[in-house]
Amino acid sequence: MDQMITHIKSWIYTAAEQIKESFDEDLQVETKSSRKDLVTSLDKQTQEYLTRQILNYDPNAKIMGEENGRDHLTDLSGRVFIIDPIDGTMNFVLEHENFCIMMAVYEDGVPQLGFVYDVMKDEFLWGGKKVGVFRNEQQIKAPKDLGMREGLVGMNTSLYKKNAYNCQKIGDHAMGVRMTGCAGKELIGIILGHRNGYISNLAPWDYAPGCVLLDALGMKFSALDGEPLKLDGRELFIAGTPTAYDEMRAIIANTAI
Amino acid sequence: MDQMITHIKSWIYTAAEQIKESFDEDLQVETKSSRKDLVTSLDKQTQEYLTRQILNYDPNAKIMGEENGRDHLTDLSGRVFIIDPIDGTMNFVLEHENFCIMMAVYEDGVPQLGFVYDVMKDEFLWGGKKVGVFRNEQQIKAPKDLGMREGLVGMNTSLYKKNAYNCQKIGDHAMGVRMTGCAGKELIGIILGHRNGYISNLAPWDYAPGCVLLDALGMKFSALDGEPLKLDGRELFIAGTPTAYDEMRAIIANTAI
Repeated sequence: MDQMITHIKSWIYTAAEQIKESFDEDLQVETKSSRKDLVTSLDKQTQEYLTRQILNYDPNAKIMGEENGRDHLTDLSGRVFIIDPIDGTMNFVLEHENFCIMMAVYEDGVPQLGFVYDVMKDEFLWGGKKVGVFRNEQQIKAPKDLGMREGLVGMNTSLYKKNAYNCQKIGDHAMGVRMTGCAGKELIGIILGHRNGYISNLAPWDYAPGCVLLDALGMKFSALDGEPLKLDGRELFIAGTPTAYDEMRAIIANTAI
Repeated sequence: MDQMITHIKSWIYTAAEQIKESFDEDLQVETKSSRKDLVTSLDKQTQEYLTRQILNYDPNAKIMGEENGRDHLTDLSGRVFIIDPIDGTMNFVLEHENFCIMMAVYEDGVPQLGFVYDVMKDEFLWGGKKVGVFRNEQQIKAPKDLGMREGLVGMNTSLYKKNAYNCQKIGDHAMGVRMTGCAGKELIGIILGHRNGYISNLAPWDYAPGCVLLDALGMKFSALDGEPLKLDGRELFIAGTPTAYDEMRAIIANTAI
């Protein structure tokens, strides 16, 4: 497993260098499902680069990725890599920062390794249950189990705007609401104790890499209704410290879902 | 003026070092107007440190600051320093990042110099109309005049939640809504072209330093109703690129204020 970690980190660092070099070039930006759903030539190039490295390393690997049209796998048997080449594409395009390269590795449906790299901040969270969780090269411990009222909560704009599932009430209880436009950064936030929770509408590649790390640190996450995440298309998502997660779920449960 | 710039930058860098050293110590956190309105011993120490440096340099200076109880000045004659020792205190306490040290210098009511230092990112925006605007040591040009639909808008949580002044409609038009909890970072965002606009409820020390720089770059800002900012207590605030500012103001003007 150590060897695989070394490989994956080197692929992600190389992909990050390629992305940073691209800032001098003209970016090709296209829209997907709406004018706010962007994909760039760099998302695609990065996905292709990471896919090639994975298949060179393990020709039998299955790959689920944001930009290869495979948003679900019929079964999770064998070794599965879940890739988000650029998480926070809007930030990448407009800010040139606040985006992550992310990857998760599953074996027969069991999460093994997660990698979340905030490229411009050079902050790399990686690890898993067996190896521990690291911030760059330093192993980290679980954050404090902050209650909902003691920390900041990350929110999806649309859910917050509509007060869906009492999201505004959750925001009122928290010390503050943050919107960053990058699931990876929000999950890093929980891992480091900078957030007590996060509620959004996410695809598997948005949540799987960070959730491997949250799981290894004893944090809680699920679909918004409390059911296990399905790794199969977009889902309403909630994560948090154990205490804040339970408190948020109690507020959500009082709404008609 | 060059000499004053050199002094102010060195004070702010020194204050930043003192703040970073404090991370190892226990922080004393108190609440002000509500449980979400925090002040720490570091806000106070930093304000006192900066005040001492200013008065050593210019014993006749007037000082308006977040933590010295002077939230307005009866007149702006002479040289006035406006200080925010830690802008984004909540982030400082909970994240240990995403906060700024800020200072503005006015002469007889005319803005001269602005300083906004994102401490943990080591990103220092400073300058004024006469000297130009710098990011660390590099002079920068005005950002592109993005329209409201082409960029990200920073929003105050409460205004957005209540849809006050059509803020949700503005968010829908923008490419996305961001909430960072730090006015300094939002104004840096406009200066660097990472935001097309920002709407919030701010005190003079929150907006004055960044607005000196926005003004020098031809960006627009005012009270939410379009009137000039009064530098006298808390006000609803709007800033943006010239095009996005006008577009946002038109949407706001359709609401009953």
